[in-house]
Amino acid sequence: MLKVSARSAAMPASAIRKLVPFSEAAEASGVKVYHLNVGAPDIKSPDCSIEAVKGRTPSLHHISYTNSAGLPELRKAMCEKYYGGLGIEVKLPEILMTVGGSEAFAIAMQIAAGPGEEILVVEPFYTNYQTFAFLNGITLKAVHSDIDDGFRVPDIGEFEKLLSPATRAVMISNPCNPSGKLFTRGEMLSIGEFCKRHDLFLICDEVYREFCYTDEPYFSAMQIPGCEDNVILVDSVSKRYNLCGARIGCIISRNKDVMACAMKFAQSRLCPPVLGQIASIGALDTPQSYFDDVKSEYIRRRDCALRRLNAMPGVFSPVPYGAFYTVARLPVKDAEAFAKWLLTEFRLDNQTVMVTPAASFYKTPGEGKDQVRIAYVLEVPLLEKAMDVLQEALRVYGDF
Amino acid sequence: MLKVSARSAAMPASAIRKLVPFSEAAEASGVKVYHLNVGAPDIKSPDCSIEAVKGRTPSLHHISYTNSAGLPELRKAMCEKYYGGLGIEVKLPEILMTVGGSEAFAIAMQIAAGPGEEILVVEPFYTNYQTFAFLNGITLKAVHSDIDDGFRVPDIGEFEKLLSPATRAVMISNPCNPSGKLFTRGEMLSIGEFCKRHDLFLICDEVYREFCYTDEPYFSAMQIPGCEDNVILVDSVSKRYNLCGARIGCIISRNKDVMACAMKFAQSRLCPPVLGQIASIGALDTPQSYFDDVKSEYIRRRDCALRRLNAMPGVFSPVPYGAFYTVARLPVKDAEAFAKWLLTEFRLDNQTVMVTPAASFYKTPGEGKDQVRIAYVLEVPLLEKAMDVLQEALRVYGDF
Repeated sequence: MLKVSARSAAMPASAIRKLVPFSEAAEASGVKVYHLNVGAPDIKSPDCSIEAVKGRTPSLHHISYTNSAGLPELRKAMCEKYYGGLGIEVKLPEILMTVGGSEAFAIAMQIAAGPGEEILVVEPFYTNYQTFAFLNGITLKAVHSDIDDGFRVPDIGEFEKLLSPATRAVMISNPCNPSGKLFTRGEMLSIGEFCKRHDLFLICDEVYREFCYTDEPYFSAMQIPGCEDNVILVDSVSKRYNLCGARIGCIISRNKDVMACAMKFAQSRLCPPVLGQIASIGALDTPQSYFDDVKSEYIRRRDCALRRLNAMPGVFSPVPYGAFYTVARLPVKDAEAFAKWLLTEFRLDNQTVMVTPAASFYKTPGEGKDQVRIAYVLEVPLLEKAMDVLQEALRVYGDF
Repeated sequence: MLKVSARSAAMPASAIRKLVPFSEAAEASGVKVYHLNVGAPDIKSPDCSIEAVKGRTPSLHHISYTNSAGLPELRKAMCEKYYGGLGIEVKLPEILMTVGGSEAFAIAMQIAAGPGEEILVVEPFYTNYQTFAFLNGITLKAVHSDIDDGFRVPDIGEFEKLLSPATRAVMISNPCNPSGKLFTRGEMLSIGEFCKRHDLFLICDEVYREFCYTDEPYFSAMQIPGCEDNVILVDSVSKRYNLCGARIGCIISRNKDVMACAMKFAQSRLCPPVLGQIASIGALDTPQSYFDDVKSEYIRRRDCALRRLNAMPGVFSPVPYGAFYTVARLPVKDAEAFAKWLLTEFRLDNQTVMVTPAASFYKTPGEGKDQVRIAYVLEVPLLEKAMDVLQEALRVYGDF
């Protein structure tokens, strides 16, 4: 009988997107759905990125392939304007543009580990790490960070316990999607030292670097001394500038073997999207005031979401210091059933709310079953309404 | 010791692009290099595609994610304007937009076969099929088509011989990159019947469909009767409209399980590039006269390339009826060494030519060692000059 491959059949569906048909059905029936489920910000892309596309398109007679590593003009501008501005030295051969941050971490994982090998991740972690691990026969082993501990990174002893001869890398996202955890300088140094000691790659997904809500300067994996060969940086341009649909990210490493492999992966898909690269070149001229405004706006939204969530009976969410997500424990047994119920049954004044069940962000069985991820990507007045809906839903649901 | 994964280290480098450093060095030293090595046409993108980007960008405040399957507006237009125009009925759930044709065949191969399974391909074939097979633990088994036979598709008996319990699919490109072979209706029906009889998927890469140089109507895999469940169509929008850098392709199947799996792959990389999708929506209004002009231009180029090649002593290239490539046998033992020598040593009036060694398009060891792929993507006067250079180079090289 004709059937799809066992691996593609067993491939996990996106936990973040699998409730989409229910929200579409709700919306089709006229219900207002507040989307707290995806990290798709409503914030304007910087004018200079749009202007770059408008300005350059008329002279484009031909949208041709670029170099597989991306336009040299973009890579150079990334090194000089962006990383240079952060005080991180990146040379041209050390950066390769990718199709969003997604392709960057898919490539990084495959360079670090092969079938049958293992990568340590701090859970909760972005679900698609698991998807790409699955597709490549890589096992993720989770170092557990706990909601009750404010998602504090466990001591290195917890990493040591999971080591095996098949361990090839540690993978983290900083700040973390979904928890909003911002790694401290000390935590980064300690993980770096661990990776160096055990000859492990450190894959650091820093796509939310520009979304940090403390006054301390961000400490990048690229700044860990002596870890030059170990670190593979995963970054996103499109995320940083609210250009998510442009699909431009990059992979950075000072390890020449890593970059040589990355180039082979890059060549196999020819080149990153050109119009997105042009938008990205423009985006690099975004003034600091844009980020300052975005940061203040997210702090307002975070403060609103956290105040409201923690005021609801039985709800707990530790304060996130980065990204635009928070994980909240709800007074429900099965957050996925609750999330589905919100979309299919619950209405308050013909409104409902969409959240992402958090279990899929954990690797340890049973963890996160009563948790949801909330993306605070709505303006405060809308967020307040969404929280009104959620609060009432929890009250009603508790009555079951 | 810290090292990259065995699989990424063993991953083949792009045969098409690995001579690039030598051509860059030649160009840096002031040498004019005629690029017959990549399928990057010099033909203008249609005005309507550029206009769509120009026209829509100013109102784009925000380049956000689209649905993972692509913009519904684009998918709908693809079904109605493009496939409808070809007389091929494609319904909305049967089409999913991808990041170029490259992502479409990578996904199709993974849906059809898993690690340890096999796909039959007609050789010579596009090298990146091998790359994605390698990365996914899939074995490609080659049905050999021979240059001396004009790359005629072998009888089904040759396919039967390669069947094993692990065979899951047949994969072809029509017209074929690199040989320019155009499959006849009879050949397609016979391969379709074979796939049906043995419950195999038929992955058909039709990205060069619009580049056919016969008067007979193109016969698509989608038109094979009774093969609805077997066929997975790989297509490209950006290739068809000389928008290669836009990176938009699609995967089409009437098999619901295939499309459900394709959606899981699509969600794992979030969405196809939005600006490229906008350019593609515009491109669908390209008038037929654009394709007629492109076709006449390629026929002139093909005729020039083939006349010149076959007039060179010891050179043979069968006439291609589609795509913009031809495979030529040269009077050299090792075409890769010759191609490198062209870039590093040979100059005629400070010019040289870049071609792609053809061995990597074959799976059978030793096949194609004296062959090159020539992309006739230059205007006739430049192509004539490139052929002058190649002819003189072969004369000199023969003297070695």
